Amino acid sequence: MELWERLQALATIGAQTGAAGLWRAPFTPAESEAVARVRAWMEADGLQTRRDAAGNLFGRRGGAGPAILLGSHLDTVRGGGAYDGALGVLGALEAIRGLPPLPCAVEVVAFTGEEGNRYGALFGSRVFAGELPSSELDGVDADGIPLREAMAAVGLDPGGIAACATQPGQYSCYLELHIEQGPVLERAGLRVGIVDHIVGLRYANVRLTGRADHAGTTPMDQRADALRAAAQALTGAAAAAERLGPPAVLTCGVLAVHPGSPNVVPGTVELTLDMRDADSGRLARLVEGAQAAFADSASQRAVELHWELGAGLPPTPMDPGLRATLTESAAALGLPAMAMVSGAGHDAMVVAHRMPAAMVFVPCRGGRSHAPEEYASPEACRDGAAMLREAVRRCAS
Amino acid sequence: MELWERLQALATIGAQTGAAGLWRAPFTPAESEAVARVRAWMEADGLQTRRDAAGNLFGRRGGAGPAILLGSHLDTVRGGGAYDGALGVLGALEAIRGLPPLPCAVEVVAFTGEEGNRYGALFGSRVFAGELPSSELDGVDADGIPLREAMAAVGLDPGGIAACATQPGQYSCYLELHIEQGPVLERAGLRVGIVDHIVGLRYANVRLTGRADHAGTTPMDQRADALRAAAQALTGAAAAAERLGPPAVLTCGVLAVHPGSPNVVPGTVELTLDMRDADSGRLARLVEGAQAAFADSASQRAVELHWELGAGLPPTPMDPGLRATLTESAAALGLPAMAMVSGAGHDAMVVAHRMPAAMVFVPCRGGRSHAPEEYASPEACRDGAAMLREAVRRCAS
Repeated sequence: MELWERLQALATIGAQTGAAGLWRAPFTPAESEAVARVRAWMEADGLQTRRDAAGNLFGRRGGAGPAILLGSHLDTVRGGGAYDGALGVLGALEAIRGLPPLPCAVEVVAFTGEEGNRYGALFGSRVFAGELPSSELDGVDADGIPLREAMAAVGLDPGGIAACATQPGQYSCYLELHIEQGPVLERAGLRVGIVDHIVGLRYANVRLTGRADHAGTTPMDQRADALRAAAQALTGAAAAAERLGPPAVLTCGVLAVHPGSPNVVPGTVELTLDMRDADSGRLARLVEGAQAAFADSASQRAVELHWELGAGLPPTPMDPGLRATLTESAAALGLPAMAMVSGAGHDAMVVAHRMPAAMVFVPCRGGRSHAPEEYASPEACRDGAAMLREAVRRCAS
Repeated sequence: MELWERLQALATIGAQTGAAGLWRAPFTPAESEAVARVRAWMEADGLQTRRDAAGNLFGRRGGAGPAILLGSHLDTVRGGGAYDGALGVLGALEAIRGLPPLPCAVEVVAFTGEEGNRYGALFGSRVFAGELPSSELDGVDADGIPLREAMAAVGLDPGGIAACATQPGQYSCYLELHIEQGPVLERAGLRVGIVDHIVGLRYANVRLTGRADHAGTTPMDQRADALRAAAQALTGAAAAAERLGPPAVLTCGVLAVHPGSPNVVPGTVELTLDMRDADSGRLARLVEGAQAAFADSASQRAVELHWELGAGLPPTPMDPGLRATLTESAAALGLPAMAMVSGAGHDAMVVAHRMPAAMVFVPCRGGRSHAPEEYASPEACRDGAAMLREAVRRCAS
């Protein structure tokens, strides 16, 4: 089966009842089914397969010495599309199909739980990199289901996770193909992006506590309106990101108002901030700017600010040697390419801690992703697989 | 039983499991129980009682000619307090207990469904005033329960509503005692407020439709961020209310973000606006100012604005003659009083369409209302009942 057919076949797994798009959350029957399907394709392609205790799936093509590792993930966000993650796994299979024998082994990996909308993000790749804190195994999802139970329910072994960490000498490098998930390549009319940095990110959980009051009887100047404070702060924080300039981005994607009644002044607002930049120093300035905007607004509106900054992830430079190989590959294939920042996190940002890593982007329509309308053309998918094939040839020689 | 004891006894009805405060929504067992309790007190006080098809409860004390009507409501918001509404009903009973025979009849009314957090607000008083559109009987609550079914379930008769409208000549005037629900009397150190206007209000349902995008890969200048547009618009709309000055108020109490994921730029925001002023022209300017703030922000942020303005209620002047009677009553009782605007809607604003109406406010602690900590002191409750008693004496003479 060709890459395109496989992508479409995989897209039938995890379809939601009554809602558009896919949902393959980690440690669910939908994810298990996707893994089983891909494992069957790997075996049909002649690869030796194994699944580790965390759920990561590997397919190996023989050869001596450290293996070249290619891959991405199979889970999706809720209402997600058919290309995010899937293209990196299936494109890797396509890339090595029919390649003549190489001096070194090649493995294709499908990491589990990259999206992090059930438990922590980049789950499988962090296990692979030996970076998952054991405390994280004690987590629960939004429905209160413990991670350990969820894993056991699909036949995985939380107790075996430490043994899943990759050891020095197993792999020579990691290449990940992914849709861009943004509008840059499409607008530039280019066919390939070669990632130079994956942005670092910080999440903040913010709570503004004012005082719930009657909307009619409380004069404007006697309110402690948590939503008004949040609105002003968000405007200021977004402006701080703009002052810093690209690739800095700041997003409030979740905002909850309490008590949430039309005729009650909001007493409490809880919200999330997602802040990203490709440079650590700039990212720190972005976080400071956002926090200052919230502190200013809170004090002006007589509202109390609780600012909880998550650990986040630092910016990750991609390996210069691999980037050069990818640039040469694009030239050899005649594909117009550009160097670019990845604004999204990817398994490559974790795997890069253990081996040289790089990424190839192909355009997706309108830059849309994490949505049912996510789409990469057959040509774009083919370009991506061709880039991986050419790079593998060059890395193996 | 004295007023204070009755208030405390009534406050045991509608207590919520696992949450503070009362919840007596209309057409629920809690409301029915409260009505039954008050009806029993009315009968113990020697009043003749009846309940109309909409659920309004009346208790009548004999006398010739049009009756003086006193009252308020027994329903509460979710998590509400023990005084909002209840004081107006029980204070009215207290006011007429032990009054010598009067030339005219007096009735005490407990209107149903004043708060409007299940079906439309001011339900019972609008039925009484003959103003409930029959289409409203086809409404459903947030759980999808049709109003007709909810009424039938507690023995009420939606088909009998038209016959509940008061007829000319039945009543001479309406007086409503209520806690202020705001901080003005307490801060001024006064014991009684005499309402000159009830503010008019307009509700708007606003939807901002942008585009959901990946929070990492979409540059700030290529977003159509519905929440950022909402934040900017809310800041502008609140400033418009402040420019207009008191008593203008504007509140956004409900705001929902879609899709509502930390790493997705909000594609849609839905929110409510509650806008009030005591003057029709000023209220119109407030609405215009708010709409302009939303239109400006939407166009600046490449977001589509859907602005749906509800019918609202016009400002309602209280009857000058009754206000004078109340002012004289306060003076006769030696209670320091002030004229003031009611920022909250009350049954009196509807009843005023059918007869002269006026309101007495007493202070509540910290101006808090619609909350478990709502509190009016025994003295304040007593002052309110005394004001009603004195005014009834004067109106009847």
